[in-house]
Amino acid sequence: MSSVSSADRTLDHVAIAVHSLEESASTYELLTGTTRSSVDVLEEQGVRVVFVGRVELLEPLAPDTTVGRFLERRGPGLHHVAFETGDLTEELRRLDAAGVRLIDSEPRAGAFGHHVAFVHPSATGGILVELVERR
Amino acid sequence: MSSVSSADRTLDHVAIAVHSLEESASTYELLTGTTRSSVDVLEEQGVRVVFVGRVELLEPLAPDTTVGRFLERRGPGLHHVAFETGDLTEELRRLDAAGVRLIDSEPRAGAFGHHVAFVHPSATGGILVELVERR
Repeated sequence: MSSVSSADRTLDHVAIAVHSLEESASTYELLTGTTRSSVDVLEEQGVRVVFVGRVELLEPLAPDTTVGRFLERRGPGLHHVAFETGDLTEELRRLDAAGVRLIDSEPRAGAFGHHVAFVHPSATGGILVELVERR
Repeated sequence: MSSVSSADRTLDHVAIAVHSLEESASTYELLTGTTRSSVDVLEEQGVRVVFVGRVELLEPLAPDTTVGRFLERRGPGLHHVAFETGDLTEELRRLDAAGVRLIDSEPRAGAFGHHVAFVHPSATGGILVELVERR
């Protein structure tokens, strides 16, 4: 697929929507043998975030947020999958040119200052996919 | 968490339930810049499986299977998260001793001959977690 992507994208993390970061972080520390990161608050996205290894736990800041509504509707569960990428601006141009429907046509700020963009679930068979350029 | 796990477990793969391996594999090749593996059929688990990098796509062999019922109930979506582990038998003993509820108390055969075991979702806040010892 070298005509589409300049580099293989590896699985960066998987994000899980939970009611309580503190409770869930302990479980994933036990399951992964990794210790949790500090907590980051993304006001714009309405979430508190903590990483336990390659698992990102998402706790809504309020019920009326994207993750709050996800929890209300489906309960705790897998929320999105993120792939690492090189130059994100360039990758978004390539995917757009390949006809992939994007939520973000330009990178925006994600947790811990990384640049991120979301692909529209209609392009992936219903799964929310994030691309991450680590900074 | 060295008292619980002898080694950090890294994210091995994320599994996505889909209606058609062939259609979805093309999408994930585009998104990840990776080419698909061969297809493996797991009769016992009622699924056909293909890997695109670290994404495992699951297609049910029949409606009346675990993944078939998942698709019927929720549509295509994230099905489970898998962490790589060392000696799986030993890890299962440690988790059991730590009070973690397991679906499999002993390793069983997963895709491509790897040894796998599932943790009960009640132990993880509702997420199906697989542990994989690659062979």
